[in-house]
Amino acid sequence: MYTAGVIGATGYTGQVLVSILLGHPDVAIELLTSNTYAGKKFSDIFPSFSGSCDKVLIRTDENLKGLCDVFFLCLPHGTSMEKVKDLYDGKSLIVDLSADFRFEDITLYESYYTKHKAPELLEHAVYGIPEFYRDRISKKKLIANPGCYVTSALLALYPLMKRKMIEGPIFIDSKSGVSGAGRELKMGSLFCEVSEGLRAYGVGTHRHEPEIQKEVRKFQDIKITFVPHLVPMNRGILTSIYGKLRERLNTSELRAIFKAEYEKEHFVRVLEGESMPDTRFVRFSNFCDIGVKAFEDGRFVIISAIDNLVKGASGQAVQNMNVALGLDEDKGLNSLPLYP
Amino acid sequence: MYTAGVIGATGYTGQVLVSILLGHPDVAIELLTSNTYAGKKFSDIFPSFSGSCDKVLIRTDENLKGLCDVFFLCLPHGTSMEKVKDLYDGKSLIVDLSADFRFEDITLYESYYTKHKAPELLEHAVYGIPEFYRDRISKKKLIANPGCYVTSALLALYPLMKRKMIEGPIFIDSKSGVSGAGRELKMGSLFCEVSEGLRAYGVGTHRHEPEIQKEVRKFQDIKITFVPHLVPMNRGILTSIYGKLRERLNTSELRAIFKAEYEKEHFVRVLEGESMPDTRFVRFSNFCDIGVKAFEDGRFVIISAIDNLVKGASGQAVQNMNVALGLDEDKGLNSLPLYP
Amino acid sequence: MYTAGVIGATGYTGQVLVSILLGHPDVAIELLTSNTYAGKKFSDIFPSFSGSCDKVLIRTDENLKGLCDVFFLCLPHGTSMEKVKDLYDGKSLIVDLSADFRFEDITLYESYYTKHKAPELLEHAVYGIPEFYRDRISKKKLIANPGCYVTSALLALYPLMKRKMIEGPIFIDSKSGVSGAGRELKMGSLFCEVSEGLRAYGVGTHRHEPEIQKEVRKFQDIKITFVPHLVPMNRGILTSIYGKLRERLNTSELRAIFKAEYEKEHFVRVLEGESMPDTRFVRFSNFCDIGVKAFEDGRFVIISAIDNLVKGASGQAVQNMNVALGLDEDKGLNSLPLYP
Amino acid sequence: MYTAGVIGATGYTGQVLVSILLGHPDVAIELLTSNTYAGKKFSDIFPSFSGSCDKVLIRTDENLKGLCDVFFLCLPHGTSMEKVKDLYDGKSLIVDLSADFRFEDITLYESYYTKHKAPELLEHAVYGIPEFYRDRISKKKLIANPGCYVTSALLALYPLMKRKMIEGPIFIDSKSGVSGAGRELKMGSLFCEVSEGLRAYGVGTHRHEPEIQKEVRKFQDIKITFVPHLVPMNRGILTSIYGKLRERLNTSELRAIFKAEYEKEHFVRVLEGESMPDTRFVRFSNFCDIGVKAFEDGRFVIISAIDNLVKGASGQAVQNMNVALGLDEDKGLNSLPLYP
Repeated sequence: MYTAGVIGATGYTGQVLVSILLGHPDVAIELLTSNTYAGKKFSDIFPSFSGSCDKVLIRTDENLKGLCDVFFLCLPHGTSMEKVKDLYDGKSLIVDLSADFRFEDITLYESYYTKHKAPELLEHAVYGIPEFYRDRISKKKLIANPGCYVTSALLALYPLMKRKMIEGPIFIDSKSGVSGAGRELKMGSLFCEVSEGLRAYGVGTHRHEPEIQKEVRKFQDIKITFVPHLVPMNRGILTSIYGKLRERLNTSELRAIFKAEYEKEHFVRVLEGESMPDTRFVRFSNFCDIGVKAFEDGRFVIISAIDNLVKGASGQAVQNMNVALGLDEDKGLNSLPLYP
Repeated sequence: MYTAGVIGATGYTGQVLVSILLGHPDVAIELLTSNTYAGKKFSDIFPSFSGSCDKVLIRTDENLKGLCDVFFLCLPHGTSMEKVKDLYDGKSLIVDLSADFRFEDITLYESYYTKHKAPELLEHAVYGIPEFYRDRISKKKLIANPGCYVTSALLALYPLMKRKMIEGPIFIDSKSGVSGAGRELKMGSLFCEVSEGLRAYGVGTHRHEPEIQKEVRKFQDIKITFVPHLVPMNRGILTSIYGKLRERLNTSELRAIFKAEYEKEHFVRVLEGESMPDTRFVRFSNFCDIGVKAFEDGRFVIISAIDNLVKGASGQAVQNMNVALGLDEDKGLNSLPLYP
Repeated sequence: MYTAGVIGATGYTGQVLVSILLGHPDVAIELLTSNTYAGKKFSDIFPSFSGSCDKVLIRTDENLKGLCDVFFLCLPHGTSMEKVKDLYDGKSLIVDLSADFRFEDITLYESYYTKHKAPELLEHAVYGIPEFYRDRISKKKLIANPGCYVTSALLALYPLMKRKMIEGPIFIDSKSGVSGAGRELKMGSLFCEVSEGLRAYGVGTHRHEPEIQKEVRKFQDIKITFVPHLVPMNRGILTSIYGKLRERLNTSELRAIFKAEYEKEHFVRVLEGESMPDTRFVRFSNFCDIGVKAFEDGRFVIISAIDNLVKGASGQAVQNMNVALGLDEDKGLNSLPLYP
Repeated sequence: MYTAGVIGATGYTGQVLVSILLGHPDVAIELLTSNTYAGKKFSDIFPSFSGSCDKVLIRTDENLKGLCDVFFLCLPHGTSMEKVKDLYDGKSLIVDLSADFRFEDITLYESYYTKHKAPELLEHAVYGIPEFYRDRISKKKLIANPGCYVTSALLALYPLMKRKMIEGPIFIDSKSGVSGAGRELKMGSLFCEVSEGLRAYGVGTHRHEPEIQKEVRKFQDIKITFVPHLVPMNRGILTSIYGKLRERLNTSELRAIFKAEYEKEHFVRVLEGESMPDTRFVRFSNFCDIGVKAFEDGRFVIISAIDNLVKGASGQAVQNMNVALGLDEDKGLNSLPLYP
């Protein structure tokens, strides 16, 4: 039994992590932290957990080093790296859900975020998409859990970019539910400012663009355009990717490539026929569903769907932990999508 | 391992049943039926189940007698009793989610529904609220699973009516998510006819009124008024009940009675302090949350929340099965409420 | 042409007022204020008004006395009375949308709100439900616009309480869209904290309870219980009222009383037959729809629907202004309900 | 005063047309038709119109020729051309909201729809986007009102394609509210099948693709890819268009071209700065809001927002009528966007 701590447990990703860990057969929750709600029971903040997780929250800024086998950090960018610095000892596994250790290139990180406070730890970090980097993940004690949009885009692009099949540029149109904005007081997250509306935001400036771009460049030197949109629903990201292939394939041939790439992956489902993914059918699960379409002249459309809080955050964090600890990769992650 | 069949598996309650049974350690799904979709895979209808339930649907009107240890019937009222007649053999357990065997009084049933086609089976049926009728359920092979609104109202009223504490009449104001209307093509269930609106319906004529009334009368002879409302959300019923107590209690004393009644019940959570239930905090779970408030002059407000498809239908069906089979009552029903 | 100022124009009620006044043939918007957004254009805050209202917001705390024929105050309770004190000169008409002048009884006000800072003005104020108090409104320069829940409840109760037909107590179950909570940063108003959920709040403690109660007592000495609920939609209040009549009437007779009472009222529509109101059918309009149902033993159900931001706030404010200025009561208020 | 008939008045576009025409100063509604609801009052179907439009519906298949100055046809594709054939006399103005007269090329029409039953009328028809074809519209008696997606895409592309500035191909990612699917009983339009989900559909096969394509080709011979998505909201289309420009422009220069093109257009608003459109800010209005973004290497993003039922259907139909009758183009169309 491994002990786990969730640092910053009262946001949406923290709360979903608790929910997943409670069902993980090899993990026991040791501690939950929140500076805002310290001293209260977790179930006071989230009454859904009444009876199943009544643990009292402790402060995030307490000294927690070595207290858990695994720490999940659900803290804001900038704050997270300070806490990682406190906790990193080469023994406890740290899964950081912030962006702080996602960029190998510190200059790129600092141009989009803030001054890095723990550059010496970057070499110990691994970018945590198990479907790409399983081996490296299994050797590290600091895992940088990817951005939600980034996961949805990269899983959709991977089979193509790995084979250098794309003729750039590509356009990535992502649509996210509101929980992606976190459990913070923002005017733009109010019910009356979101429901019955639809908008793009951060066009050409969103921080997930360089994160997608640097990963794509590891495989193919093509330019991406990333445009996120806010959709009036709680959970889910649907990403539609547009571009051209170097060679001419029909849809079946294109699908065959995706099938081949992902046939052993438990959490990636490549859809058949004309089917295209619906976020509804991955909601609350760690699945990524992918549909593909090719046109005679090389144009392609790839569409992926994930739950932004699961495969896009807390589920992938647990998947990364499973890989790093040598556990079965789907442990604790077998809950099915739920609907309606 | 018990084998189970879900008869009428492609409605919302059928689909939720499949989802619960897939996680039940002592049950294996043997067959799924649908006249409309027979020949298709279950996961063709509900792509969320792709990889986890790809079983091919068979016709409902096939002869299925004796093929399963447990049959769950998710058929329309009227149709269900015919199938029960086909299946009932005193050996297989039948859990009927329709209204066809909920009324001991056949005249009452027929005045609200249709001519009864299997009156000879009524004596073998038991009304399936485990919290009230656990013993009887354990002795029967035909369980009439209660209506969703009815469950929410009766669990809220039970501690009072059992103690004959109510001075009638009482008013039951229920609000339901749209899945309560089923997965059928009705104008009133279209997104554009539901969202951004709120309405009462069936005032004084809804079929769940006599079902609540006949259960209340078993304990106390008081008159109820039941008014259901349709709320733009997928799942959940919130029921607010108004009335007067015979004696004067304060809120703490009233809560103590509920606590005492339900302290051993796994699925009923009586809330503390000023807290009132939110359907969000029971969503996707088999919990019923209850909050109470008493006023100096005897007036009371009791509010309950359930997921209409779980404790209000398929979850309670599995709970009834567990009781009837002598299994732990919460087996397969431990999934936590999920949010957001 | 009357000049109008909207004080606190960047909340939901302020914004809706601007929208209504722009279409009012006898009113010109003179000034809009906001301490938060002063110096910005109104259409910067609400891009929907781009091209139709690009007026620059000025500060609320400027000296505005006498600058307009009509002032609408959309300020928080407590703050509003200070501004009324500044503005009141017996010439300009003041319509105050806060609670500060709604209570004739200063003690009652202070027990639910805060110390009153302008008690000397209370005698100049009139409670602004035109359907009840048209004559008095036409003689005053300070109109206390009623609460949204209060309007929905009182219009539904008026025909009965005026005729002293009720045998108390009565139970008022109201359900409101989220805009009722205002355009403020509250955790409970976030999309992910509201959508797919339903809850009661302020049971027995909501400030609209004493406001309803004191108005009811003007007609009949009966006790009310008020329970508001939060519904995942933008606009609309549906209020379901339960109680007993002193005499026995059938539904037709009960409806006839409502019809008689409201036959000359432009904004109250009493529904026919079994029809019950839907907030969808009054949305964006100043209508209040009412449906009634009587039972043989005297129990009754009355259900009313309004748009909380129109008849429940800004529309009624303009209706009050029309009455006070001697204009046709429906001027500027003829926009139809819009759907879907 | 012109007399108008709405043929097929009980769908969403018909209902919105009635709502607009009731506010049009120069038009009186003469007749409303519906085969399904003939004999009922319009306000029985849509209670929001109670008191404002209680006209009795007549049958669509009655002989109506010459009875109105203007006929609006809100009928399904295929059916509509038969009715146009009945009504067309070169005197009454016919605005057809179906696709039946949108294609000059009958072969293209027939390959996506059905055999054309009135090919002889095609030469009398004009494609009705007033911003492009105002002159032609003013000379015709048969106006083919464009598709909703098509309007949103073409208004966004027009300034570029007119100037032949695009280097193909381009990708058009559209997101629509559910009312775009019409007021018909379809499984995919049920609340529980739409809310809390997001999906693409008709990828590469949607009928609006050839309609966009043939209009684009009138200006520039470039290939388009059109992917529509279904979003859980009632109204609104947001269209994000991706591609490359032939020359390098910065965002300001790109915006200047749009500003120049649309400066005299009442209903097209080109946004300033980094602002991007939100469907919320055009909802219930005839506006099309457009935001633009250019990148150094020629890539561009253009985003447009319309209300699919107004500028995407019934509002544009009235705008077309105004043009054809020589009325001010914004008559009856001045209602502001409404929010929240």
